[in-house]
Amino acid sequence: MATSKLYESVADHIAEMIRKGVLSPGDRVPSVRRTMRQQGVSMATVAQAYALLEARGFVEARARSGHYVASSPARVLDLPRGGKGASVPVSVQCDQLVGFYRAMGNPRTVPLGAATPGPQLLPTERLNRIAARIARSAGGVGAVYDPLPGFLPLRREIARRVVAAGCSVTADEIITTSGAIEALHLSLRAVTRPGDTVGIEAPTHFGVIELLGLLGLKALELPCHPETGVDPAALEVALQSQAVRACVLVPNFSNPLGTLMPDAHKRWVVEQAASHRVPIIESDVYGDLSFGPSRPRPLKAFDRTGWIMHCSSFSKTLAPGYRVGWSIPGRFHQAVERLKFAATVATPTLTQMAIAEYLHSGGYDRHLRRLRERIAIQVRHVTSAVTESFPSGTRLSRPAGGFLLWVEQPPRGVDGVELQRRALAQGISIAPGALFSPRERYRTCFRLSCGYPRSPAIDRGLRTLAKLLSPAMTR
Amino acid sequence: MATSKLYESVADHIAEMIRKGVLSPGDRVPSVRRTMRQQGVSMATVAQAYALLEARGFVEARARSGHYVASSPARVLDLPRGGKGASVPVSVQCDQLVGFYRAMGNPRTVPLGAATPGPQLLPTERLNRIAARIARSAGGVGAVYDPLPGFLPLRREIARRVVAAGCSVTADEIITTSGAIEALHLSLRAVTRPGDTVGIEAPTHFGVIELLGLLGLKALELPCHPETGVDPAALEVALQSQAVRACVLVPNFSNPLGTLMPDAHKRWVVEQAASHRVPIIESDVYGDLSFGPSRPRPLKAFDRTGWIMHCSSFSKTLAPGYRVGWSIPGRFHQAVERLKFAATVATPTLTQMAIAEYLHSGGYDRHLRRLRERIAIQVRHVTSAVTESFPSGTRLSRPAGGFLLWVEQPPRGVDGVELQRRALAQGISIAPGALFSPRERYRTCFRLSCGYPRSPAIDRGLRTLAKLLSPAMTR
Repeated sequence: MATSKLYESVADHIAEMIRKGVLSPGDRVPSVRRTMRQQGVSMATVAQAYALLEARGFVEARARSGHYVASSPARVLDLPRGGKGASVPVSVQCDQLVGFYRAMGNPRTVPLGAATPGPQLLPTERLNRIAARIARSAGGVGAVYDPLPGFLPLRREIARRVVAAGCSVTADEIITTSGAIEALHLSLRAVTRPGDTVGIEAPTHFGVIELLGLLGLKALELPCHPETGVDPAALEVALQSQAVRACVLVPNFSNPLGTLMPDAHKRWVVEQAASHRVPIIESDVYGDLSFGPSRPRPLKAFDRTGWIMHCSSFSKTLAPGYRVGWSIPGRFHQAVERLKFAATVATPTLTQMAIAEYLHSGGYDRHLRRLRERIAIQVRHVTSAVTESFPSGTRLSRPAGGFLLWVEQPPRGVDGVELQRRALAQGISIAPGALFSPRERYRTCFRLSCGYPRSPAIDRGLRTLAKLLSPAMTR
Repeated sequence: MATSKLYESVADHIAEMIRKGVLSPGDRVPSVRRTMRQQGVSMATVAQAYALLEARGFVEARARSGHYVASSPARVLDLPRGGKGASVPVSVQCDQLVGFYRAMGNPRTVPLGAATPGPQLLPTERLNRIAARIARSAGGVGAVYDPLPGFLPLRREIARRVVAAGCSVTADEIITTSGAIEALHLSLRAVTRPGDTVGIEAPTHFGVIELLGLLGLKALELPCHPETGVDPAALEVALQSQAVRACVLVPNFSNPLGTLMPDAHKRWVVEQAASHRVPIIESDVYGDLSFGPSRPRPLKAFDRTGWIMHCSSFSKTLAPGYRVGWSIPGRFHQAVERLKFAATVATPTLTQMAIAEYLHSGGYDRHLRRLRERIAIQVRHVTSAVTESFPSGTRLSRPAGGFLLWVEQPPRGVDGVELQRRALAQGISIAPGALFSPRERYRTCFRLSCGYPRSPAIDRGLRTLAKLLSPAMTR
């Protein structure tokens, strides 16, 4: 397990040299080959380490010339404290969500709340042109229900991509859904009965908490490390206890902490799921948004016995409003397919066809490359702003992918819900920490979305937040 | 209540005259005015009576000349026996559905199974052209989640139509969904907890039974009259018992019996719901498909206190594969809106926009007029075929709208599931009766869909079914 974050220790080593002044601003960072030799690691590891240093603002890449120490090397805030586990499951009540979502979705607020990519980053114009062409030329589209388990050419394209991410999966194993949230919903329903307990990350995405409420399930929070995600030992205890019927995990760039589970942990989690016969439902919606050179593998890539129920969508990378996702439910395929029929009969045809053709055309990989670069820049920008202007003692997550940052205020910080209220009054949306726990913990934390490109409005929003957080304002 | 089917007794009176030979084939049926005077009823009642006689094959309308006795007045089969109520609720297990649905959806079978309109009857080409125009001209469509409670211009168009059907509803009260099934799903979830009992029609649509299974609910079957639907007295007992937390009813052209609840029953059901504070969830997906001159009112039209949760969609009349429906949840609006977010976040944008524009253009009413006429012809055709060729003693429903027929075989008929197997072996799909009850009753019944226009394949399918049903075949 120690070696799984090798690139991080390489990055830390170089960051340390920068902090100590061994390397000064403008200096060339040791070449990839030299670092390979010095540290005895692979080229991929060094490349990943440099990407991480770049994302953290320590170095800058110059075209065809290598990496250089950034002109003002970033001060690095402490990591937030991650989430404590709970010893007892809890029933889910969570009524403030719709109001919160409405506030997040208000197009007139500064968009630091909702976990959505900026529409200007998405190729929806091209996608819509494809949809238009299909709608014009195929007169009968939509005249019948798309037959289960979903539009075959789309399932083939998804299979191709999931295989490229390391999984052994065919189109037959995929069921298309109305976004990843429906995939999670059906997966949960397939393997639990009301009253059952489900293990979740602490903190976790409020969409998962809402789903547990909808299905009458109890939540058991599992402790999470702020960089590597769920604690393997605690997960093992939960799976052994037999009280936990399933877990929902986001191994790649979790929401809100942005954690990335090391491969060794992933392998271990998959083994535990099989040996205790407890399904693990994974959401991989951020998996394609790595800042490093390689796409991290989903849990499904290590799954040989079908206990991993893989869920994902195109909502974070391509077209949220198309509402197209998928489920790879492993040994629970039949149950999920049946539930898909019961819940929404079918996924709309036209949107599936358009995405299938877009993927087939090859444009998606090019788009993803650009999107990852832009998102890394956005995360770096917000990280700098928080580091420079938020009160001393603020802690901040250091995601290696995705576009979410988790802020922990110093002790006696502003209550997150109150902060949300004050921020909204100034036209800024954020996601208060209490939403990310069924016990409404994390009261002095909040999530910032870096999905939108830097703009004067975003800069103003971050400055205003800094003021709202300053001790003078908290009274 | 007796007067609520006045037009039926007028129709029965004239049918009786035809049967007794008072009126012979080719005779002109008494004019509307004369019948009005003779029977002391309104013009609307007579018009409805003549439409019913036409649908049943007794009379033919000739343009600008009135109604004439059909050349070979139809023999009328006895009605099926409707459904008996149950005294005890039952947990729902129903595992054969996906296989059944797959068989129904097989495009190579004769389509007498699935409850879908023939694609050649739907204006999807025009709808897709609208979708294409929108996708081409509005580059950003789909780049963000459609905000709750759904696309406003579509909600305005739906409100306009629902108001025309007699309801007092504004666009603000409507939530768009992924088909009516999601609306039913969210409505059920909003007002029940797992383990609760829900009153359903006997027999009822298997989609409703599946939803109860998905939500961990118990089903209490309410007895149904084969023409007027759920028995008011039995419903009252169920609501009084307090054990029933909600009911799901299809007041207009139910699935599978095709019943039409008289207005007096509707008024009564709505009053009972309010006085016992038990929500009634109504599906009105067939309401626009009346063979009579007027569209029957939904329960919602009688609702003053918000206990009716209205659900419908465009899947039976416009575009099944677009997956657009809606919910008007009355006093449970907030809960349903919250659940919509938890279940699928949002309904896709492009499909909502296209339907909104199609409705706004006014084409929908013209389309519905043609669709109703063609469907009435299809129902009449299948009715004739069953009447002429199925074994003596067969009973058949007489719907006044929708496109479903319910066949009850004489005692010792073929088991419906076995019949489905044999029919499928001959390339014909039907829906076996057992699917329409959580206790798998109605073993010798089955449902025929008349959604597709008459064709040689349909004629062959009906002939083959007749052979499969003949006593010689059943061994």
